[in-house]
Amino acid sequence: VGSRPLLYQLSKAGKLCVPAMNVNDSVTKQKFDNLYCCRESILDGLKRTTDVMFGGKQVVICGYGEVGKGCCAALKALGAIVYVTEIDPICALQACMDGFRVVKLNEVIRQVDIIITCTGNKNVVTRDQLDRMKNGSIVCNMGHSNTEIDVASLRTPELTWERVRSQVDHVIWPDGKRVILLAEGRLLNLSCSTVPTFVLSITATTQALALIELYNAPEGRYKQDVYLLPKKMDEYVASLHLTTFDAHLTELTDDQAKYLGLNKNGPFKPNYYRY
Amino acid sequence: VGSRPLLYQLSKAGKLCVPAMNVNDSVTKQKFDNLYCCRESILDGLKRTTDVMFGGKQVVICGYGEVGKGCCAALKALGAIVYVTEIDPICALQACMDGFRVVKLNEVIRQVDIIITCTGNKNVVTRDQLDRMKNGSIVCNMGHSNTEIDVASLRTPELTWERVRSQVDHVIWPDGKRVILLAEGRLLNLSCSTVPTFVLSITATTQALALIELYNAPEGRYKQDVYLLPKKMDEYVASLHLTTFDAHLTELTDDQAKYLGLNKNGPFKPNYYRY
Amino acid sequence: VGSRPLLYQLSKAGKLCVPAMNVNDSVTKQKFDNLYCCRESILDGLKRTTDVMFGGKQVVICGYGEVGKGCCAALKALGAIVYVTEIDPICALQACMDGFRVVKLNEVIRQVDIIITCTGNKNVVTRDQLDRMKNGSIVCNMGHSNTEIDVASLRTPELTWERVRSQVDHVIWPDGKRVILLAEGRLLNLSCSTVPTFVLSITATTQALALIELYNAPEGRYKQDVYLLPKKMDEYVASLHLTTFDAHLTELTDDQAKYLGLNKNGPFKPNYYRY
Amino acid sequence: VGSRPLLYQLSKAGKLCVPAMNVNDSVTKQKFDNLYCCRESILDGLKRTTDVMFGGKQVVICGYGEVGKGCCAALKALGAIVYVTEIDPICALQACMDGFRVVKLNEVIRQVDIIITCTGNKNVVTRDQLDRMKNGSIVCNMGHSNTEIDVASLRTPELTWERVRSQVDHVIWPDGKRVILLAEGRLLNLSCSTVPTFVLSITATTQALALIELYNAPEGRYKQDVYLLPKKMDEYVASLHLTTFDAHLTELTDDQAKYLGLNKNGPFKPNYYRY
Repeated sequence: VGSRPLLYQLSKAGKLCVPAMNVNDSVTKQKFDNLYCCRESILDGLKRTTDVMFGGKQVVICGYGEVGKGCCAALKALGAIVYVTEIDPICALQACMDGFRVVKLNEVIRQVDIIITCTGNKNVVTRDQLDRMKNGSIVCNMGHSNTEIDVASLRTPELTWERVRSQVDHVIWPDGKRVILLAEGRLLNLSCSTVPTFVLSITATTQALALIELYNAPEGRYKQDVYLLPKKMDEYVASLHLTTFDAHLTELTDDQAKYLGLNKNGPFKPNYYRY
Repeated sequence: VGSRPLLYQLSKAGKLCVPAMNVNDSVTKQKFDNLYCCRESILDGLKRTTDVMFGGKQVVICGYGEVGKGCCAALKALGAIVYVTEIDPICALQACMDGFRVVKLNEVIRQVDIIITCTGNKNVVTRDQLDRMKNGSIVCNMGHSNTEIDVASLRTPELTWERVRSQVDHVIWPDGKRVILLAEGRLLNLSCSTVPTFVLSITATTQALALIELYNAPEGRYKQDVYLLPKKMDEYVASLHLTTFDAHLTELTDDQAKYLGLNKNGPFKPNYYRY
Repeated sequence: VGSRPLLYQLSKAGKLCVPAMNVNDSVTKQKFDNLYCCRESILDGLKRTTDVMFGGKQVVICGYGEVGKGCCAALKALGAIVYVTEIDPICALQACMDGFRVVKLNEVIRQVDIIITCTGNKNVVTRDQLDRMKNGSIVCNMGHSNTEIDVASLRTPELTWERVRSQVDHVIWPDGKRVILLAEGRLLNLSCSTVPTFVLSITATTQALALIELYNAPEGRYKQDVYLLPKKMDEYVASLHLTTFDAHLTELTDDQAKYLGLNKNGPFKPNYYRY
Repeated sequence: VGSRPLLYQLSKAGKLCVPAMNVNDSVTKQKFDNLYCCRESILDGLKRTTDVMFGGKQVVICGYGEVGKGCCAALKALGAIVYVTEIDPICALQACMDGFRVVKLNEVIRQVDIIITCTGNKNVVTRDQLDRMKNGSIVCNMGHSNTEIDVASLRTPELTWERVRSQVDHVIWPDGKRVILLAEGRLLNLSCSTVPTFVLSITATTQALALIELYNAPEGRYKQDVYLLPKKMDEYVASLHLTTFDAHLTELTDDQAKYLGLNKNGPFKPNYYRY
């Protein structure tokens, strides 16, 4: 989810000494590891740590990228009332059309039961905001690293930390207010949930194919730069996993392939296609 | 929705004599004019023409691109049982994860109540398949042009056409079976529904900004080629429409912008980002 | 939907001179004519009259009975942000668990784009509240009669009425604000939508069976009172309509029927069962 | 969920020696402990035991009562393809309208990944059917007792049981096929999930109020029979829990109460109302 891909920085600085494949942004990785996987792991992570009931809860989700979209869809489906914060107007408009109110965190901080960060940014939830949260509210991170929630700011003498079970801390204010912090602000999906084998398989297959491609590529195909996975390989990874669902692909007729200007075996979409 | 963009063909053939902007593939156009708009117009178009009840109906949707995704989401939400056909394994896998069985049309042709084409292809529904549809079933096109359903094949002497109301024909087989063909196979959303002013506004703004950009661009910025709308403009179009929803964007702090390596005013995403 | 069933009043007053069957409260009538039918007709009625886009719209629905539940589910599924008003704490709690904020109308009147009444009550939307609605907002009634919105209060000299198309009036305030009133406050689903033949069939079958039962019943089975449809008949109506959906019912084995203390042919539920 | 309430049997046999209150069938109990609670615990129970990914999975749910409705809604929302089996035509028709194919178990037994029983019946899944399940499929019970799946039939010499973790057994066929049996066929929601404190509070409040009512009731109000909780108490339990959600109830005006023929403080619905 991170927003400052190191490889692109190296490449820009002319310091990348081998070709690299950005598998993180292949379609299957993005949609499966992020959208579809997080749609489930947010529920799983919250239940295993807090046993919270989702129905009727007010939740704010910071960031409406693939991870945020997954979290929002799951919690809305289970009866939570979900608010979204965004910095990007396109993602914000998507949130509107998907039925979420787009707010600044300060507008809802006093009323929400759960805050979930999915931004790739830092200090998205500040000490000042944590001070204003309700007693018993939950705060956790689905984004990246452990910087999205300013956890460091909670390690001050006037606050008491109480470890209530593995990965669950109650941070207690002088007036007795408790905020439930999960995984000390690290990734909930990695710390308190599991990654389904199906998603691991997609990710591992993608990585293996990328390595094989880089190894087998004729000299000169790849320079010392960062490349996206060739679309045909992305499609190949997907096709290998369709049998799991007993899904039956339709084949183009020769006539249709000609009409569409496509090879019958793909790739089926232009590079800029968004899925 | 079309799959053989003429401008790209001209460009490839070296016959494009001016720079061109592919506004159709800007994010706001794709998501709003296709996904979000079709999510509503499929319901509207079917109701205005046939008054069909969606609950419990079996529907097959050919193509799981933006249009197909919109149609599937709407009909599933209203209690229809939806099947998907796809040629592209990535889209097929998305359909699986969204809860749709991916089938070949022939597997479900005898049982479905409604067929909707959203492919950009031709002859997606053939005469042979129309022959096997149930009495009273509905067939319509949300994709492009009027070639997705092989309507020409229905103009044979043994079949009777009965116009029951504007845009609605009953095609009657010798045994009395009726198939309800909407808009003679032309686009349902254009023929039998309306485009919301909100979506028109997004599309028109995008087009106007693209023209202004091409007109104002310094000599040499654009060659005789096809360009995608600069992301900042796409974001600008979105931001102009947020007030409609009373949506409040969060602004990056200087510190956050630096951490993310972004300009505080965008663009906020790399070019390959899929939304 | 009405809340003061005349037959029950007559019965209570000892003025009912024949046995009567309350078919309106049979399960199939309530769920199909109200919940499932309104889930579709609210969308249809709004589209045909106003072409409004649902995505991102803020909507308040007054009343969370069967009709309100149907309207809420449909609009939420299409990306609207839905608020609910209720007088009954049980229905209010259901709304919470289904993901809707339960508010008083005055809390949201200035921000909503659409008001829909589904209460069976009168003066649910008052002139004072209509005065505070946004320019361009829509108000309509899915409940009963034409009293839920205080339409009479809008017929005052300072307001101008402009009929923009059949069933659609713009009521114009002196400052130019327009509120879009549908069907002059009468039932939107009857005035601006259609009732699917499937639902008509269920309702008509229920009524016919009730009449046959009353006619054929042995002397003394029914007194001069109001009766609910015998559950077996309700089940019979449902079973007659299952073939439409190619639905296959499971039959109890003798052993299972004995275990459950049920007749293999039903009725399958106690009378107080809520479905 | 049980289908043979002992108290009603005792009452029918004239053997009930004190008045009894059927709190299990109060609205708040039915909807919260069954529908809303199981909507979450089915996901939780499956994740904690098997880490299964829901997206794309084919699931059959036996029984479409409150528990089945909750399970279906949750799994559909997370991208599973859900089939329903039913003996009751009314519930079967509800399943159709909610977008589920109603089938006999034998029609889908070979293709489903997960079987969930929610019937209150016995031998809903037989050894013969377990023999035909796919390798790696999961079978569990959300209904009642431990009789819904014929677990006893799996304790035969040719099958090997392997305990893979607490509450999870692999039953291994001679050909190596494994079926994953959860909680040895006992209730998944009680064995492998938790009951939210909110639901406990509703249930406990209902039980306490019922006891107080029986204790305080004037002589003669209750005979040696089984009674449903008076509706006003059901409404009172609900109203006590609304503050959790910051839900604001609307109050009837005197005029409206008179129009509806209701007391302003409730009860608000006739006894046969289904919610």
